[in-house]
Amino acid sequence: VKRIKVNLENSAYDVLVGARMLREAGANLLKATRTPSSKCIVVTSPVVRKLWGKTLEDSFRKAGLNYSVIEVDDGERSKTFRNMEKVLGAFVQHRADRKSLVIALGGGVICDIAGFAASIFMRGIPVVQIPTTLLAQADAAIGGKTGVNLPGGKNLAGTFHQPKLVIVDTDVLSTLPDREYRAGIFEIIKCGAISDAKLFAYMTANAGDILKRDSSAVLHLVSEALKIKAKIVAEDERESDNRRLLNFGHTIGHALEAATSYRRYLHGEAVGLGMLAAVNIGTAIGITPISVAQKMFSTVNSYGPLPPVNVPDETVLSLLGSDKKTVNGSTHFVLLKDIGRPVITSDVPAAAVKYGMEVLRSAFRQSRSHQVSHG
Amino acid sequence: VKRIKVNLENSAYDVLVGARMLREAGANLLKATRTPSSKCIVVTSPVVRKLWGKTLEDSFRKAGLNYSVIEVDDGERSKTFRNMEKVLGAFVQHRADRKSLVIALGGGVICDIAGFAASIFMRGIPVVQIPTTLLAQADAAIGGKTGVNLPGGKNLAGTFHQPKLVIVDTDVLSTLPDREYRAGIFEIIKCGAISDAKLFAYMTANAGDILKRDSSAVLHLVSEALKIKAKIVAEDERESDNRRLLNFGHTIGHALEAATSYRRYLHGEAVGLGMLAAVNIGTAIGITPISVAQKMFSTVNSYGPLPPVNVPDETVLSLLGSDKKTVNGSTHFVLLKDIGRPVITSDVPAAAVKYGMEVLRSAFRQSRSHQVSHG
Repeated sequence: VKRIKVNLENSAYDVLVGARMLREAGANLLKATRTPSSKCIVVTSPVVRKLWGKTLEDSFRKAGLNYSVIEVDDGERSKTFRNMEKVLGAFVQHRADRKSLVIALGGGVICDIAGFAASIFMRGIPVVQIPTTLLAQADAAIGGKTGVNLPGGKNLAGTFHQPKLVIVDTDVLSTLPDREYRAGIFEIIKCGAISDAKLFAYMTANAGDILKRDSSAVLHLVSEALKIKAKIVAEDERESDNRRLLNFGHTIGHALEAATSYRRYLHGEAVGLGMLAAVNIGTAIGITPISVAQKMFSTVNSYGPLPPVNVPDETVLSLLGSDKKTVNGSTHFVLLKDIGRPVITSDVPAAAVKYGMEVLRSAFRQSRSHQVSHG
Repeated sequence: VKRIKVNLENSAYDVLVGARMLREAGANLLKATRTPSSKCIVVTSPVVRKLWGKTLEDSFRKAGLNYSVIEVDDGERSKTFRNMEKVLGAFVQHRADRKSLVIALGGGVICDIAGFAASIFMRGIPVVQIPTTLLAQADAAIGGKTGVNLPGGKNLAGTFHQPKLVIVDTDVLSTLPDREYRAGIFEIIKCGAISDAKLFAYMTANAGDILKRDSSAVLHLVSEALKIKAKIVAEDERESDNRRLLNFGHTIGHALEAATSYRRYLHGEAVGLGMLAAVNIGTAIGITPISVAQKMFSTVNSYGPLPPVNVPDETVLSLLGSDKKTVNGSTHFVLLKDIGRPVITSDVPAAAVKYGMEVLRSAFRQSRSHQVSHG
C-alpha cells in the first residue's frame, strides 16, 4: 500500500493506493476517521454496486460499521441539481445526521455529486472518496472539488470540500469498459504534460502495457498522477494560482462537452481533444514549438481513437464566455512551452481558438491519422 | 452609523447599522470590497424591489458600479433548490464570473438563497447582505449561514459563507407589514432570553414604543441583537458549541414550520411559539422555574397574537428526528435556567415535548389568554 499525503493547511488527508484496497476499506475508514460515525451512507451507481458493492459492504460489516446504500445514476448528464436533491432526500430518509459519513463509491460523477451533497447536507458532513474509474482515481477524487453542471456550463455550481480519506483500489479497474479506461489516460497524460516530462515519456513509450492494463504499469501511472495532483493542490487549495495548471486541456474540453450536451464525449476524451487544441493554439500564438505539438498528437493518438469533432467555432467561443476560467470577459488558457513547462495566459485571440478548433475538426476528418496540418 | 465587527478568524467583516444606509450602500460597498468587482448581481424580491430598489440602484450608479438585478420570490416556501437553480441560471445569463459580487436585498429568505447561490456559484463568490426585514436585520443576514429547505425539514441543505459586509438600514422597516415586523421581534426576544436579561427587560417594558416602531427604540433593539449575535458567531463560527444557543426556540419552531409546510407561520412566529414550548419543556423537567416561564409568556404575548397551534405530537416528534440538531437519535434542546442563562441538553423525554406542545395548543385554545395551565 502506498500512502500519498495531501498536505492542506486545515485538512490534511491520505490517499491510500494499492491492489485489493476495497477489502480493507472498512478498517482503513475506521482508522482514518477515528470516532466511529453514527452512520455511513454509501453513494454509488447501480453498475458499480453490482460489480464491487459486495466487496465494500463485506469490509464494512467486518469493521462493524452501520451503513446504508444510496444509488444514483452516473454519466456526466446525471450531474444535475435534480439528482443531488434526490441524494439529499435519501440522506434524510436514511436518517443521516451531523455525525454521519458519506462514502462515494464510483466514477468522477458519483465522487462529484456525493462530495457536493456531503458538503451542503446540514451545512457540511464528512466524505470519504473511493473512486472506481481511472479518471476518478488519478484526478477527480482528490483535491476536494465537487460540483454539478448548469445548463450554461460544466461544474458551474459546487464547493471545495476535502475528503477525510481517499481509497484507490487499482483492482477495480479490471471491470472498467475499454473506452472509459482510455478516457482516464488522457488526464494522466495531462499531469505529465504540465509537470513531469518523465511521466509523459513513460506514457509515450509504454502505450502497449498501459492499454493491456498491466498491473504494475497501472499502479505506476496512478501513483505518479496522484503525487503530482497532491502537490499542486497542497500549494493552492482554492485554485487562485498554480492549481489552474490542472485545467490544461479543460478550457476547450469543457466547451466541447457543453456544446454536445455531455452526450458525445467522456470527460477524459474531451480533455484529450482539449489538449490537442491547446497545443495548436499555442503554436498559433508562438508559445508552443511545433515539435511539442507533434509529441502531444502522437501520444494522445496512441490511446485513441477519440470521437470526431464538428462543433462550430461560434458555439465554442460563446461557451468560453461563461466558463469559470473567464474573468472580466477574458478566458484563461493553460498552454505549453514544452512538455512539463506550462504557462497561463489570458491573451488568446479568437482567431487562435478557431485555428485550434479547425485542427481538431480536420485531424479527425482525415480518418484520424497522426498527420496534422499546419497551413 | 454604528459599526459592529464580526471578528471571525479568516473573514472579519463589518455590520453597518443606521437610518438612511441604503443611499450610501454603493459607496460603502466599494470601500469594504476595495477592488471594484467586475459585476454586481443584486438578488431581490419583486416587492422589495418596488419599494427600495430605486434607492439602492441610485446609490450604485452614483458609485459607478456595474450591476444587474435578479428577482426571486420571497416567503419560506421559496427556499427551494428549484429557486436556487433559477438564481444560478440568472447569474450565468448575466455573465457573472469569479470576480462578481452578489448583493442580497430582502428578507431572510432572499438572504439565505442569495448567500447559498453565491457560496456555490463557481465554487464560491463573495456576497454582501442588505437585509430589509426586522428578522433578517437582527439575525438572518449575519453569521454566514445559508440554506434552502428540503421536503424533510428546514435548512437541511446549505453552507457557511460569511458576507463581506452587512448593511442594515432601519428606515426600510417603515414599509414592513405589521405581521412581519412583529415576527422579527421574537428573534430579538430570543437574543435577550439567551444572553442579555437587560435587553429582555427592555422588551418587556417598552412593547408600546417598539410596536409603534419608534426609531430610536428600533435602532436600540437591532444593534443590541446584532452585538449579541456577532459575539456568539465570532466565538463559534461553525456551531460546534455556543452558537447552538441561538437555536433557542428553534427546535419546536422548525418542527411547527415543517409540519405546516411553511404555510402557516412566519419563521419569527414559529420561534415565538418554540420559545413558549421550550420554557414549558424546561419546567416539566425541572430546569426552568415557573416564574421564568411566566415572564416568557407575558413578554411574547405582548407582541402577539400568534397563529394557533394544532399540530399533533406524533408529527412534531417525528420531525425532530430529522432536525439538524439531532445526532445519534437524540435532539439537542436549548432551555433556560433563567432569563439570560441558557443550557443545552439532549436529555428531553418525549413526554416533556408532548407537554410543551399541549401547553401551546391549550394556550391558544383559551382564546389567547395569558393564562397557562400547569396541571
